[in-house]
Amino acid sequence: MSSTFGRLFRVTTFGESHGPAVGVLVDGLPPGLAVDPEAIQHELDRRRPGQSAITTQRKEADQVEVLSGVYDGKSLGSPIAMLVRNSDMRSKDYDTLKEVFRPGHADYATFAKYGVRDHRGGGRSSGRETVGRVAAGALAKAALGTVGVQILGGTVRVGDVEAHERDWAQVELNPVRCPDAAAAQLMQALIERTRDEKDSVGGVIELVARGVPPGWGDPTMDKLDATLAAAMMSIPATKGVEIGGGFGMTALKGSQTNDVFDGERYATNFAGGVSGGISNGNEIVVRVAVRPATSIGKPQVMAKQEGGTETVAIEGRHDPCICPRVVPVGEAMLAIALTDAWLHQRALRGRDQ
Amino acid sequence: MSSTFGRLFRVTTFGESHGPAVGVLVDGLPPGLAVDPEAIQHELDRRRPGQSAITTQRKEADQVEVLSGVYDGKSLGSPIAMLVRNSDMRSKDYDTLKEVFRPGHADYATFAKYGVRDHRGGGRSSGRETVGRVAAGALAKAALGTVGVQILGGTVRVGDVEAHERDWAQVELNPVRCPDAAAAQLMQALIERTRDEKDSVGGVIELVARGVPPGWGDPTMDKLDATLAAAMMSIPATKGVEIGGGFGMTALKGSQTNDVFDGERYATNFAGGVSGGISNGNEIVVRVAVRPATSIGKPQVMAKQEGGTETVAIEGRHDPCICPRVVPVGEAMLAIALTDAWLHQRALRGRDQ
Amino acid sequence: MSSTFGRLFRVTTFGESHGPAVGVLVDGLPPGLAVDPEAIQHELDRRRPGQSAITTQRKEADQVEVLSGVYDGKSLGSPIAMLVRNSDMRSKDYDTLKEVFRPGHADYATFAKYGVRDHRGGGRSSGRETVGRVAAGALAKAALGTVGVQILGGTVRVGDVEAHERDWAQVELNPVRCPDAAAAQLMQALIERTRDEKDSVGGVIELVARGVPPGWGDPTMDKLDATLAAAMMSIPATKGVEIGGGFGMTALKGSQTNDVFDGERYATNFAGGVSGGISNGNEIVVRVAVRPATSIGKPQVMAKQEGGTETVAIEGRHDPCICPRVVPVGEAMLAIALTDAWLHQRALRGRDQ
Amino acid sequence: MSSTFGRLFRVTTFGESHGPAVGVLVDGLPPGLAVDPEAIQHELDRRRPGQSAITTQRKEADQVEVLSGVYDGKSLGSPIAMLVRNSDMRSKDYDTLKEVFRPGHADYATFAKYGVRDHRGGGRSSGRETVGRVAAGALAKAALGTVGVQILGGTVRVGDVEAHERDWAQVELNPVRCPDAAAAQLMQALIERTRDEKDSVGGVIELVARGVPPGWGDPTMDKLDATLAAAMMSIPATKGVEIGGGFGMTALKGSQTNDVFDGERYATNFAGGVSGGISNGNEIVVRVAVRPATSIGKPQVMAKQEGGTETVAIEGRHDPCICPRVVPVGEAMLAIALTDAWLHQRALRGRDQ
Repeated sequence: MSSTFGRLFRVTTFGESHGPAVGVLVDGLPPGLAVDPEAIQHELDRRRPGQSAITTQRKEADQVEVLSGVYDGKSLGSPIAMLVRNSDMRSKDYDTLKEVFRPGHADYATFAKYGVRDHRGGGRSSGRETVGRVAAGALAKAALGTVGVQILGGTVRVGDVEAHERDWAQVELNPVRCPDAAAAQLMQALIERTRDEKDSVGGVIELVARGVPPGWGDPTMDKLDATLAAAMMSIPATKGVEIGGGFGMTALKGSQTNDVFDGERYATNFAGGVSGGISNGNEIVVRVAVRPATSIGKPQVMAKQEGGTETVAIEGRHDPCICPRVVPVGEAMLAIALTDAWLHQRALRGRDQ
Repeated sequence: MSSTFGRLFRVTTFGESHGPAVGVLVDGLPPGLAVDPEAIQHELDRRRPGQSAITTQRKEADQVEVLSGVYDGKSLGSPIAMLVRNSDMRSKDYDTLKEVFRPGHADYATFAKYGVRDHRGGGRSSGRETVGRVAAGALAKAALGTVGVQILGGTVRVGDVEAHERDWAQVELNPVRCPDAAAAQLMQALIERTRDEKDSVGGVIELVARGVPPGWGDPTMDKLDATLAAAMMSIPATKGVEIGGGFGMTALKGSQTNDVFDGERYATNFAGGVSGGISNGNEIVVRVAVRPATSIGKPQVMAKQEGGTETVAIEGRHDPCICPRVVPVGEAMLAIALTDAWLHQRALRGRDQ
Repeated sequence: MSSTFGRLFRVTTFGESHGPAVGVLVDGLPPGLAVDPEAIQHELDRRRPGQSAITTQRKEADQVEVLSGVYDGKSLGSPIAMLVRNSDMRSKDYDTLKEVFRPGHADYATFAKYGVRDHRGGGRSSGRETVGRVAAGALAKAALGTVGVQILGGTVRVGDVEAHERDWAQVELNPVRCPDAAAAQLMQALIERTRDEKDSVGGVIELVARGVPPGWGDPTMDKLDATLAAAMMSIPATKGVEIGGGFGMTALKGSQTNDVFDGERYATNFAGGVSGGISNGNEIVVRVAVRPATSIGKPQVMAKQEGGTETVAIEGRHDPCICPRVVPVGEAMLAIALTDAWLHQRALRGRDQ
Repeated sequence: MSSTFGRLFRVTTFGESHGPAVGVLVDGLPPGLAVDPEAIQHELDRRRPGQSAITTQRKEADQVEVLSGVYDGKSLGSPIAMLVRNSDMRSKDYDTLKEVFRPGHADYATFAKYGVRDHRGGGRSSGRETVGRVAAGALAKAALGTVGVQILGGTVRVGDVEAHERDWAQVELNPVRCPDAAAAQLMQALIERTRDEKDSVGGVIELVARGVPPGWGDPTMDKLDATLAAAMMSIPATKGVEIGGGFGMTALKGSQTNDVFDGERYATNFAGGVSGGISNGNEIVVRVAVRPATSIGKPQVMAKQEGGTETVAIEGRHDPCICPRVVPVGEAMLAIALTDAWLHQRALRGRDQ
């Protein structure tokens, strides 16, 4: 399998969390598009740890360097390589973990897969791999912007606290990145409580694409829903994805959930903007289940590599709830998947629509 | 985009619901595996309409013909083409639909995408496209069987009726394909009521793979969860997918959802058998949200192709709940996705594990 | 690996020479293009055995059936499956070959690869596999025609007889498909002599694409030359390919072979229409080395499957020179490769150029 | 299209000749293989300009940095990113070329393709792009070494001077990299004469793989010959490729060119080690036509971007014959293509053979 997402717009991340660098190679961005390093850095800063009291206190500057594919502020149409050096590599935090497999983590599965072990952190399974996704997503967002598509995202649930509003202007005004200011406060309190318990809590993020014209996606194996689902479930710690009405609409009737369309407007959006795998002109709405972070400070029973178990507390600085930091990653993956679908539709029809 | 699922085990379906035939081309099945046409036919019969009082009464024999890739009862390692002729093509049922876009259907999005229209039914968006998936899935199931992997599936919710048992032996004993005999009766009653109202109802199916060794899947873009999510969301009428604890575990704490592992056994399975994108040796558990079928007999408001709306009732014979018929399709896609992951792991390590 | 050529325009052949059928699945043809079954059949007739005294006398009707993807004479944008039933399967001709590996053939390599053996003919390595390529090529030619691209081809050498003219109107007027009428007669005489000796002779075919605009292809791994080379070398019995000046220009100087361009016209075409992997607006010219057919009537020393050797004459009806029948296959592959490059350029720029 | 070669072993190069860096991302190398940075540097040094009196006198240190995928001297199975900073960027040499399209170069085709222009050198079409290929090839060579495959290469013709010996031990002992010491001296004299004329001369390189077991490659579209042809023709300045007997055998008879095999040994190698697209156990032999370098010091007529022509001499330091420096690139591409075929065969059979 591979580290690449997309076929025409291909995003390949690289780098281990405790190696020299992480980064991304983006191939297939059309030529002549403005590429703004500050916009890329801005997205990376949104993903970065240490932004607020409710994220991990690790310090990573995450300064991006664009190595290729851009000249004179414009994309050349050639591969764009972007690099972020790793700085705060406290590998010794991981020394106690050399001989055990952390519960919930990918340690055991990874060792079974590769037969070799890099115990210095999560390696490729670390959330740090998403640095490259976010940098690539910044390019995708800008590209989509040229055809009128806008990407939004926010945390809509933490534990059992649900957001009821979708006021996207609120998202960057609270540390939870919640589009409901009142819910944000409850969420923040819950996250702080969880942090103090050396535990973690899950949540749901919602991602929206506005302005996608009808016609993107494919009717069978490459349904736009399928591509979006893969994009989302490729993000670390995600365990579910739903489009539009999702699981909730399974309890309803067809007469309730068939979105009535008058040729211009949809009365409802149970389809989440995708009908039969193809964008239908409505807003694309995706929700992603984010599990409680597997890295917690509480002592846990762990399998030892040589057999038997041991109770160990994982040192280090953990995120009590990763939702706020998954939001920019989700936005990036949504933008990346849509850019690929956009280019495919251009190939099919020979024009933008 | 394409009609192909998989990279090493590649499944490409073809055929319109009201054209001469539907079928599938399967490329990448290893050589020397027993191929049993009756096993393929058996799976097609499970998918076929008209099996019971709660499925559509359309009659389709769905007799499969294997055109290539098999000699002397064994796979040759070359592409296997399988063909099912279309027989019961009551296109005239669709005549009233020539000028309108059915709500919930892909009609409008498809027309926007291609600029041409085949109004004779759903074309590629029809559930009939899944014939090819099921035929390919039968090959994948058999292939996985040679390395000890078993695929199970059933309907675990219809409307608001939930299955509480997972007695897989029950599945083929009730028309709902529910692994809980008591729930099956309630589900059946609900489906019959819905049918009488000329409406449809949604549900959830669950799919399980037993015996998958640790190590299948990839840590980043090709996470096994991502591949499974794409596989499931490529099935018509699906709008959500979750692995293991899924959306439910987002309300819990990390200390509750980190599956404790003693080196041999997991105490729980919130990960659904996949950790960091890689199979962890536990059962793989996937649940899929199936929306209420969009084809219903009730009159509905439809956008007219030339503008304006019209209220039309869709003639024809519809499925009041498609879950029972989605089960074999879901099993097929699970088997197809896992076969691809299996072959990738063989490439990586040079052996079966 | 796979049986598919192309990424956006994907052509997958299937079928064994002595199985029930051969065929092809074409995915990615844009919608709304006229599809003429007679044009497809016409190309298949050009490839068919038994056309003249200098091709094999096997009789194969090679009647094509279009199973999907076409409605009302137009492409739907969905996969087009095409089927040709096998009829003249004289498998018993191959009975003496059950236990030996024919020299020059793929028998031994195939057995080593798959571990199973279908001795009934060449299986997938048979020239019969090219039926599907030719059918797909007919679609590609028609598609390219809509953007002004024309495909030509002919035999330009047989043994040591070289064509000096490139009068493409001659090609279908002589059985060698040579664009030089005088050379054609010498070639034909050589082929007949070779046939009488129960031997075979090689040759070179040349393929030309006119009207390709500048900009198709890619600067690095997917150079248009690379794609064309792969397309040609994927044809059975080919052992060399050159573009433009090819091997001949390796003996010249840069000052001789740099094609001078005045902004509209090129003085020469050493580049063969491709500069740095990208079409440059000049005619695309490709030559392909076709080895002497490996199936000959003369007795030959063959390795036996159980060890040792045996001298055997291969029964059956052979082509003394396959160049005339490779010409339509070469044209098909050129058209297929260019169609893929065309669609990629549409994706990149969002329009036809 | 893309900048990637391979499907299971994926090599993607990036970087413009006059941008900050060039490099490569290698995805799919199996885990646990020894990775020796010095072996990578050694191959880069073989490709580097300024090695001898007959190569360009540009100075580039080409120091490689391995950014990911390697830990403790072993591959992790994750993507390996390798970076070489550009140093000797004399962009001003190119200032006179801002407004013209150099003959033989990709300038015009590239501008037509992308609509933007980076006149600072060849950009992605520069020979400098091959730095990444060579670094990746070093990994591939090492990987193949673990299964007994050895890669060799040399210059076998320059202009009209042909090598008659294949004494591979000679290759690194003369600046032409010719496996025939006597021919090497004549070649060197011809190259020096050509350099003094401010011109360039073409040639042929030959590449050999020893120890490839039978069974690698595929019978149809992904024939090993097709993959090797694409690999070679993706190298800048190549215009032809042949396997085994190649174009020469087209003048012969089947009875001469069918390689007789006694079950262990082949009497001849007209097939070049590949039968029906699958390796047959014989040495794999590929020859590549390298055109005279298009960058020459002589004044040439050039099309001006705004219309009309101009006679310009290209400043800078050119290679009078690039064959010696193409040899390591050819070896790299052979190794890369074979590694991909090797992994595919492991997937098919579940073991090394």
